[in-house]
Amino acid sequence: MILKIKTKSKREIIDITEKINQILVKQEKKSGLIFLFALHTTCALTTADLDPGAEKDYLTAFEKISPQANFVHPHNPEHFPDHFLSSIIGAFLLLPFENKNLVLGTWQRVILVEFDGPREREIVVKVI
Amino acid sequence: MILKIKTKSKREIIDITEKINQILVKQEKKSGLIFLFALHTTCALTTADLDPGAEKDYLTAFEKISPQANFVHPHNPEHFPDHFLSSIIGAFLLLPFENKNLVLGTWQRVILVEFDGPREREIVVKVI
Amino acid sequence: MILKIKTKSKREIIDITEKINQILVKQEKKSGLIFLFALHTTCALTTADLDPGAEKDYLTAFEKISPQANFVHPHNPEHFPDHFLSSIIGAFLLLPFENKNLVLGTWQRVILVEFDGPREREIVVKVI
Repeated sequence: MILKIKTKSKREIIDITEKINQILVKQEKKSGLIFLFALHTTCALTTADLDPGAEKDYLTAFEKISPQANFVHPHNPEHFPDHFLSSIIGAFLLLPFENKNLVLGTWQRVILVEFDGPREREIVVKVI
Repeated sequence: MILKIKTKSKREIIDITEKINQILVKQEKKSGLIFLFALHTTCALTTADLDPGAEKDYLTAFEKISPQANFVHPHNPEHFPDHFLSSIIGAFLLLPFENKNLVLGTWQRVILVEFDGPREREIVVKVI
Repeated sequence: MILKIKTKSKREIIDITEKINQILVKQEKKSGLIFLFALHTTCALTTADLDPGAEKDYLTAFEKISPQANFVHPHNPEHFPDHFLSSIIGAFLLLPFENKNLVLGTWQRVILVEFDGPREREIVVKVI
């Protein structure tokens, strides 16, 4: 199936943990692994701590590590770091679930990192 | 199952290759894929070359790429890069095994990267 | 099975999407997930946008984020960032396929990032 996520800003951290749990509740399998893959080159999927303020800190940190150079990327060279950060972090996740619920650490959340929104993002979801 | 790893320092590279092989030896399946997922937001799992001195070099390099900014993270803003590096590298691995042994390159090892130890880390392990 | 990829330069972005699709066409399974794992510590696998000029931009950006320090890596300390970037990006991928063809975004390609070529790289491939 495809999970669609609407993003609202150019760069944004979106907690998709509950969306994944809502999908798991509807599955026949009670435990296993769930695979997520974003069909895009300017967003990423990963896990993160989302304490108050953490979203702002993540965006600050991504800005800090964005490489600065005279990129040749067509249309808009300044846009290239969006692709680069997406490739570094990765577009897929594999996560464990039990009792139709993600198995995560106490502070661990599943996030979509938007680098070039606002857009509607599509994530392939498969239960293994 | 849960693999528990005790770390000893604030930042540390821990070779967990043999721990994974010890788990594989006890499995019924002889070949397949093994999934690892750290239930934490300040450590990471990846593969690495561990030549003599490499652990020190990895720690030096992580220090060098740690973003510096006025983070708003509660409790201790200086601690935010630990979360950030964990999210960039990733908390999960999927690795092939044959004859109940990991299939790795000649110099390739499976590592836990500790960014905020010492702690006891928990890794979900599932054989596919 | 093992997919072999010959690289031609010290650092290089290689689009392996069609090689993966050629493998999928020969499989019995029509849809599922395909796992890729590079048996090396100085290359990486990820997904990327490969607009004209993007390969050059990726190499420029990797150069920009390479940590600079007095590494102690044996043989050649300047070589350590090759290992480091490989560990950060990751050596494995899990990708969805349908009708014996990868399911990717419009601009999304599967790439091998060579950091220390030219070499013949070996990638473990398993269909799940």
